[in-house]
Amino acid sequence: MKTIIRNISMLNIKEKKIEENVNIGIDGDRIVFVGDILEGFKAEKVIEGENRVAMPGICNSHTHIPMSLLRNYGDDLPLWDWLNSKIWPAEKYLTPEDVYWGAMLSLGEMLNSGITSFIDMYFHIDSIGQALCDAKARGFVSRGLIGSDDGSREQLAEAESFIKNWHNTQNGRIKSMVAPHAIYTCSGDYISEAMELASKYGQRIHIHVSESKKEVDESLRDYGKSPVEYLSDLGLLDMPTVAAHCVYLSDRDMEILKEKNVNVVNNPSSNLKLGNGFARVDEMLKLGINVAIGTDGSASNNNLNMFEEMHLAALVNKGVNKDPLSVPALEVLKMGTVNGAIAMGMEDEIGSIEVGKKADLAIISLDSAHLCPQNNLLSALVYSAQSSDVETVIVDGNILLENREHKTIDMEKAKYMVKSISKRILNA
Amino acid sequence: MKTIIRNISMLNIKEKKIEENVNIGIDGDRIVFVGDILEGFKAEKVIEGENRVAMPGICNSHTHIPMSLLRNYGDDLPLWDWLNSKIWPAEKYLTPEDVYWGAMLSLGEMLNSGITSFIDMYFHIDSIGQALCDAKARGFVSRGLIGSDDGSREQLAEAESFIKNWHNTQNGRIKSMVAPHAIYTCSGDYISEAMELASKYGQRIHIHVSESKKEVDESLRDYGKSPVEYLSDLGLLDMPTVAAHCVYLSDRDMEILKEKNVNVVNNPSSNLKLGNGFARVDEMLKLGINVAIGTDGSASNNNLNMFEEMHLAALVNKGVNKDPLSVPALEVLKMGTVNGAIAMGMEDEIGSIEVGKKADLAIISLDSAHLCPQNNLLSALVYSAQSSDVETVIVDGNILLENREHKTIDMEKAKYMVKSISKRILNA
Ligand SMILES: [Zn+2]
Ligand SMILES: [Zn+2]
Repeated sequence: MKTIIRNISMLNIKEKKIEENVNIGIDGDRIVFVGDILEGFKAEKVIEGENRVAMPGICNSHTHIPMSLLRNYGDDLPLWDWLNSKIWPAEKYLTPEDVYWGAMLSLGEMLNSGITSFIDMYFHIDSIGQALCDAKARGFVSRGLIGSDDGSREQLAEAESFIKNWHNTQNGRIKSMVAPHAIYTCSGDYISEAMELASKYGQRIHIHVSESKKEVDESLRDYGKSPVEYLSDLGLLDMPTVAAHCVYLSDRDMEILKEKNVNVVNNPSSNLKLGNGFARVDEMLKLGINVAIGTDGSASNNNLNMFEEMHLAALVNKGVNKDPLSVPALEVLKMGTVNGAIAMGMEDEIGSIEVGKKADLAIISLDSAHLCPQNNLLSALVYSAQSSDVETVIVDGNILLENREHKTIDMEKAKYMVKSISKRILNA
Repeated sequence: MKTIIRNISMLNIKEKKIEENVNIGIDGDRIVFVGDILEGFKAEKVIEGENRVAMPGICNSHTHIPMSLLRNYGDDLPLWDWLNSKIWPAEKYLTPEDVYWGAMLSLGEMLNSGITSFIDMYFHIDSIGQALCDAKARGFVSRGLIGSDDGSREQLAEAESFIKNWHNTQNGRIKSMVAPHAIYTCSGDYISEAMELASKYGQRIHIHVSESKKEVDESLRDYGKSPVEYLSDLGLLDMPTVAAHCVYLSDRDMEILKEKNVNVVNNPSSNLKLGNGFARVDEMLKLGINVAIGTDGSASNNNLNMFEEMHLAALVNKGVNKDPLSVPALEVLKMGTVNGAIAMGMEDEIGSIEVGKKADLAIISLDSAHLCPQNNLLSALVYSAQSSDVETVIVDGNILLENREHKTIDMEKAKYMVKSISKRILNA
């Protein structure tokens, strides 16, 4: 399939600017030209770009997509109550089919806000693979490995089986990472087993790090070192690693993250909502650490809206640092796109609109009152835009959302299924 | 005109709950029943409420609506640079007609996010009165009084003329307040003149208070007291007062605000974006101070989206206080509705859906993926909902937005006019 997007404004994230009147050509899964139309290019599909901006597809770099099943369940509670009395008991009732529908709804919700790739951590992950396959979406799936569970062996087996059966399938849209959940849920030995699995298959690591003060205090108490130091000493950070949250970091922790090239994922909504506080985003960026953004799961957010997360990242850090120059619009747009691609190890393939890269992009309508007048589109995308401005979304060259209509997902069915599943498990 | 909304879920803000299957009857500008349908009531207009929530119209309690003309102009700059080199010079070029179109666009944008009343401060305010009149919208208009300007006399005259010509017109939809801009732009004598004007006409006061650290430091330096103490000693706080921002407050300041029944307006986006920081919202609420929410102007936000502001107020205060129980969903919904009505002195007329009150309400569609499943609608409205979920908005019994279509505002014309005005003044 050959597609052309005509005369559109385009976010050129590497050149740090909006280019006007660009034509973007897509052949199969690849971008084949940006700028002038390639001679002889015959498009089967033409998208008019007037009064629109094309931006790289947004990367949601840390989430748990099936948790939309538990949206708004147990809000306004302390973290440990919420996990112990609400989330974990409810999750015990989830079947693979439940996870499939939770994932499917979330894939639709993510496309609605221009998300074209994500890094997930959950269980019953074959179901997530199947949902990705059916929706033609792109994502990194990882089995959350809880070493303290009875099922810790089975979890490693589930992770390995996913790698064998799903990793790099569907034209490379489905990939996997290995995900020891966190240091407070895994023993050092179990984390080492996860590392072996990752080494064996050349997989990246996905892990929660220093999300709460409790986690850090307990690490200092039990190991005499911070979670980052502990993981560094285990050798985990020598592997390509995606570290979610990283709220409570010492200066030394940040040096280690920089030294080891760890990819940090900022989750502003979740960190605020659960009362964990503010990550040191501005300082990490200034140190040259790669910081991406993620929504975390819908149970602690309570949606999968990366426009909200980018907006929060831009605003909150200015407030924390009492500095209106802190984490400017362009930096946030990078966090939401190219930095996510780097976290995924896919910076040569996605994260920017460039010739030769995969065609993963979102088209934003500029028609809304809140985007008028257009004095600075870089600013507008971060400070004014809303997920409802996303009009069309292309993943791997396929149009998955067109004029806000889903092309691969039956959203009515997904909503119906999620409602009935949610009713069943929360009344169980 | 008689309207009925059938079988809708309704936010009963006073009873702190969502009621199911409610019928709401509107006759003229008033709500005539809530619950069962009044016998013999013959509606000319029926709105089906299935899969929807009716909530009280949202009150945007501090803003400068014509500033949408300057949206995204001069972002990521320090406050004083931004004001001195960008905003104030540009504002010098604004004509009354410009202000009319900036106001009109913003009235449309505010209806898009369910806002049915607001408290404004700007200049060329006859134009804002005219826009309100033409749009059939509800609002409090105030002339920002800058005592240090050459035009300080004319400003008082403009304020008085607005009171005489516009206050309480249009079935009471258009009202006025008297607005000495701030203590750093007005002398004590000038503030006293403003107070006399307010007394003469029984008007409320609208003023910026303790927005930045600079303002407080200078007040302590020049007067030996905080802005709140200074205004209290001037007698201003003995009048019904709406104090915007209130970011930098001492414990003593908060006692005074409580004692004097001052209405505080929290402006989370603006305070974060300009690097001013975090207001002590949780503490003010616990002291029993009436705290409402506002967007501030679009130049420092950069939109007029109260769902974003409510979302921010809920999340940010949890992060600041490291407490997931801080400023819960219901409290935020009150801030956005009934607390705003109290700030306006209109708690007997608007702010909740009750028999005998004005019919100011917003109907929210629950159809979106991000509102599925519906485990807790109070939570969903704050943590999951987006302004694009607003479907229909009624002000004073009139349907101004129906299925997201504007009934009184020509939005295409407003956008066209705002774009050309913005081009003209920013190139001047
Ligand atoms: Zn997580
Ligand atoms: Zn203001």
